[in-house]
Amino acid sequence: MIIKNICILGAGTLGSRVALQAGISGFNVTVYDIQQKSLDFSLTTMQKILRQLHKSGQISAGQDLEVLSRIKFTLSPSEAVENADFINESVTEEADIKKKVWRQFGEIAPEKCIFTTNTSYMLPSMFAEDSGRPEKFCAFHFHDVFYSRVVDIMPHPGTDPALIPILEDLGRKLNQVPVLVKKENPGYIFNTMLMALIGAAGKLLTGEVASIEDIDRSWMVNFHMPMGPFGILDSIGLDTAWHVTHKMPDRASQAFAALLKSYLEQGKLGEKSGQGFYTYPNPTYKEQDFVK
Amino acid sequence: MIIKNICILGAGTLGSRVALQAGISGFNVTVYDIQQKSLDFSLTTMQKILRQLHKSGQISAGQDLEVLSRIKFTLSPSEAVENADFINESVTEEADIKKKVWRQFGEIAPEKCIFTTNTSYMLPSMFAEDSGRPEKFCAFHFHDVFYSRVVDIMPHPGTDPALIPILEDLGRKLNQVPVLVKKENPGYIFNTMLMALIGAAGKLLTGEVASIEDIDRSWMVNFHMPMGPFGILDSIGLDTAWHVTHKMPDRASQAFAALLKSYLEQGKLGEKSGQGFYTYPNPTYKEQDFVK
Repeated sequence: MIIKNICILGAGTLGSRVALQAGISGFNVTVYDIQQKSLDFSLTTMQKILRQLHKSGQISAGQDLEVLSRIKFTLSPSEAVENADFINESVTEEADIKKKVWRQFGEIAPEKCIFTTNTSYMLPSMFAEDSGRPEKFCAFHFHDVFYSRVVDIMPHPGTDPALIPILEDLGRKLNQVPVLVKKENPGYIFNTMLMALIGAAGKLLTGEVASIEDIDRSWMVNFHMPMGPFGILDSIGLDTAWHVTHKMPDRASQAFAALLKSYLEQGKLGEKSGQGFYTYPNPTYKEQDFVK
Repeated sequence: MIIKNICILGAGTLGSRVALQAGISGFNVTVYDIQQKSLDFSLTTMQKILRQLHKSGQISAGQDLEVLSRIKFTLSPSEAVENADFINESVTEEADIKKKVWRQFGEIAPEKCIFTTNTSYMLPSMFAEDSGRPEKFCAFHFHDVFYSRVVDIMPHPGTDPALIPILEDLGRKLNQVPVLVKKENPGYIFNTMLMALIGAAGKLLTGEVASIEDIDRSWMVNFHMPMGPFGILDSIGLDTAWHVTHKMPDRASQAFAALLKSYLEQGKLGEKSGQGFYTYPNPTYKEQDFVK
């Protein structure tokens, strides 16, 4: 099967990035959302990224217009899926909304179309039946598309195995490194490990073993990385981290979720609110003498 | 208190590296071991590292001889501690041996001397009383001295708090980033987080969620790191990793320890034996197309 036409459902941050990469890779792209202002935001996001990619020499002058000419925006479901070979859904991370979207698009999408969800923490089996074509349904999960170029391919038990090599090939064409999640796992591969790391950091902090700064310092200096677990948490958003950790049953996760909640109650959401474990835009961990 | 004379107990890999850095930083150093062949190994190790440091421009021509002129090697305990201001102990990671060493050196060390242990997974309170001067006793734990430049300062409940700023200052003079472990914690700060990461990776593998390669790929590409958890395990040594994980009571750690044991029973210890999760000297994760 040859994929030419890609439909992106949901014009948020991640959907827009996937759509833009698809345009850069030469696919015909349609971006669908229920609100015009989301589509406007999506175009602005793409233009901003294109400027950065031009600055860093990853695309040439004039290529931006060529890329954008391949990307259409629409509020019409039928226009969105017209002749689509592939759908990647990035709508709001709520099961009921995703189920509704898949019931709607499963009815009108062309028969050839492959269905994928870009959910961060839910499982494809939660929506596969709603789409009406569970055998054509799989998770296809991006990280941030341009810096962290991993795409998780995670089938549910009813996915046709013939889909896997097609999705691996598509992932490579989208400039990603495809990895196979052989059975359904919330958090795929990377997020599972990242959460374990962050959980251990949280336990060191709530157990009063070490300070935020010394925990991050240990990670940064040992691994020569630009940030440690608390810097990473600030960039993910403390609200997002709380959503994941507060559902975990073990005592350490519960203690950490309680800590995150105390930050959230003070309006500290991380980098986006100007305050989290560090203060932005100039957090101490970015200062030169932080690791001296 | 001014530290000038440093005594290193145990001329293994880590002890030799600490001694060499102390020599580079201008301290007078005495390296003690019970075997002449260990002292010979230590000198060879230092000469090898000095050649690398010269190659990479970190020390100038001729500086190597100057550094080595400050480092003495001895089989005599009394010579080792003569006029010592500071002891860092890196002997075999067995509680009985460490206790015996501290009983011996606690008796003969000058009264001014600060006592520190470089233990990886034990606690300073296990040997503090043996030294006869628990208030002068603290953990002072290096990672690899030259690439990973973190030193953990971990007091036990009886450590004199006045020791902490002295050790922080010494850490900086030894070109390390000092971090304070406010209460005793096996694995200090970094190793606690690393073990959580490796445990999560092990769970993904033993749970058949993903392959060794895809787990490492996810970590490497998302964080732009040169190796993933299994590459790291191979470089740590599967025997060392087994020693840590097989004592942990949770089911995931037990499953992972069992996996490690199956490798060890085949003689696969990681990089040092030529075979671990990958095959050395040319593991696939170092190939250019591994992350494509």
